[in-house]
Amino acid sequence: MKLATLNDGTPDGRLHVVSTDLTRAEPAEGVQTLQALMEDWDGLSPALEAQYARVNQGTGSAFEPEEALAPLPRAWQWLDGSAYDSHGDLMQKVFKLDPSPKGRPLMYQGMSHQFLAPCEDVPLPTEEDGIDFEGEFGVICDAVPMGTSAKDARAHIRLLVQINDWSLRTVAPIEMKTGFGWIQAKPACSIAPIAVTPDELGDAWRDARVDLPLNVTLNEASFGAAEGYHMSYGFDELLAHAARTRKLVAGTVLGSGTVSNENFREIGSSCIAERRGIEMLDKGAPETPYMAFGDHVEMECTLRDGSNLFGKISQRVVQG
Amino acid sequence: MKLATLNDGTPDGRLHVVSTDLTRAEPAEGVQTLQALMEDWDGLSPALEAQYARVNQGTGSAFEPEEALAPLPRAWQWLDGSAYDSHGDLMQKVFKLDPSPKGRPLMYQGMSHQFLAPCEDVPLPTEEDGIDFEGEFGVICDAVPMGTSAKDARAHIRLLVQINDWSLRTVAPIEMKTGFGWIQAKPACSIAPIAVTPDELGDAWRDARVDLPLNVTLNEASFGAAEGYHMSYGFDELLAHAARTRKLVAGTVLGSGTVSNENFREIGSSCIAERRGIEMLDKGAPETPYMAFGDHVEMECTLRDGSNLFGKISQRVVQG
Repeated sequence: MKLATLNDGTPDGRLHVVSTDLTRAEPAEGVQTLQALMEDWDGLSPALEAQYARVNQGTGSAFEPEEALAPLPRAWQWLDGSAYDSHGDLMQKVFKLDPSPKGRPLMYQGMSHQFLAPCEDVPLPTEEDGIDFEGEFGVICDAVPMGTSAKDARAHIRLLVQINDWSLRTVAPIEMKTGFGWIQAKPACSIAPIAVTPDELGDAWRDARVDLPLNVTLNEASFGAAEGYHMSYGFDELLAHAARTRKLVAGTVLGSGTVSNENFREIGSSCIAERRGIEMLDKGAPETPYMAFGDHVEMECTLRDGSNLFGKISQRVVQG
Repeated sequence: MKLATLNDGTPDGRLHVVSTDLTRAEPAEGVQTLQALMEDWDGLSPALEAQYARVNQGTGSAFEPEEALAPLPRAWQWLDGSAYDSHGDLMQKVFKLDPSPKGRPLMYQGMSHQFLAPCEDVPLPTEEDGIDFEGEFGVICDAVPMGTSAKDARAHIRLLVQINDWSLRTVAPIEMKTGFGWIQAKPACSIAPIAVTPDELGDAWRDARVDLPLNVTLNEASFGAAEGYHMSYGFDELLAHAARTRKLVAGTVLGSGTVSNENFREIGSSCIAERRGIEMLDKGAPETPYMAFGDHVEMECTLRDGSNLFGKISQRVVQG
């Protein structure tokens, strides 16, 4: 099943069921918003699956991606991992960070009261902050009790999403050094228009990981196509980590961290900071600048058959 | 004006107007929840101020604190500062942390999808985590645009609250060392039953700080009575810091961090970790244990005339 939230002027938008090929959409029957669906997934999703079959047979009207908000335009909780060791290890080396503790996922709590629409301009105060994107995969879960194991957490993964975790790199190390995590360095994220149930991925949903490449372009030039599979912890393990001392509210969004592979020199990166890190290692200094106002980033993910999975993130940064 | 949210079985509860002496309460007229009030403070608060005058003249019914939820049982954003240098400097010395950067407030983003009720048991998985309380003051703001100055931020402070920021001290340094902030070490906070407008404090609302002591008892023995005024940054400056690269959603809760004074040896502490830090300095090793299941913490704040301001936090930790 594929779902999108279209702008109807309300804060949470209007949930729609979208056809597999992303050409058609119809207002969801029996539930207004994705948050409401997450709060009663078992009760509401069977009717939506039936509606999805009908939309795939031609009901509904044309799906207009530019009307899409983030699937959850706001959420009660946004937790972001950093589950790709090739990215973490490089950042650690380049920025001389303390080695991250082994045997524990890295995770921070981010702002969740706003997720930007996938084609919305991104207003930020100044280019001096080192504006960067971070291409990620993520999950949306229903309610997860405190103490849930990784094994049991997997069934709580109801939807998969594709995220751009906007990051301000000049501020990030200053905040990181405090140990308190990030406030100014992590403004609102963006989410691609389509949230999909894991079955839409077929074999590409494997070990609670998205086994597909994330294609990133910057100003229309290819920037990276890292494979999503190479997480040191699956989303099930990340959920269990988060739920050890708290219950997770239905509609919690949990991200993978920047998708990254060990062969990043060949396959490219999902954020500028990683490419700059490689340049520092290989050439002694970074060459690729962070984003300027007007710069344009796109991210999308296709199944092995070439069909688009989550729709496209396509955004420009602008003076806020 | 004094406000409370009483349990009516809904996630956000029912907003009530409470008399100054905390004896009477009446369902708020024209607005169901505190979140809705924060989203239209200018439009809705004048009628509530008029209702507050009537409740103070005897309308409504008896206020039962045990029916109170947190004023915001859930919020879209919870940001917590660490604005008392006497606490931060001690923790830094004892735990051999890197010195925090000067000229910038310390702040982390915490979980906001649940604030525990002021008299609710606190379920946690194990005593081994080093269960601790943190007594704080906090503010609730209306919508703050990105880039708002400290001067302009002050007018967005609509309500003051008293918070217990539950902390798990065994986990905290492990998470802090990653630079990512806290997930497992910071489960749901609690908030005292009454949210008050700043004018309720009279002269004790000074320089965007609460100039009153926070009285903390542990198992019915006095633990601390630190004065709230001694913040290195006022709440106006903390809001401006948070809003530099994001807009703050209406109903954002922002905390002061553990209330602490330089004369903590005389006046006591608002968390166990600080007392243990003093013991480490003075005696070479900590003596005060963290909380055991069944232990009982209370926190309250009185005006100089002895009247109770926020109602009382009174909680036991229990096996979760």
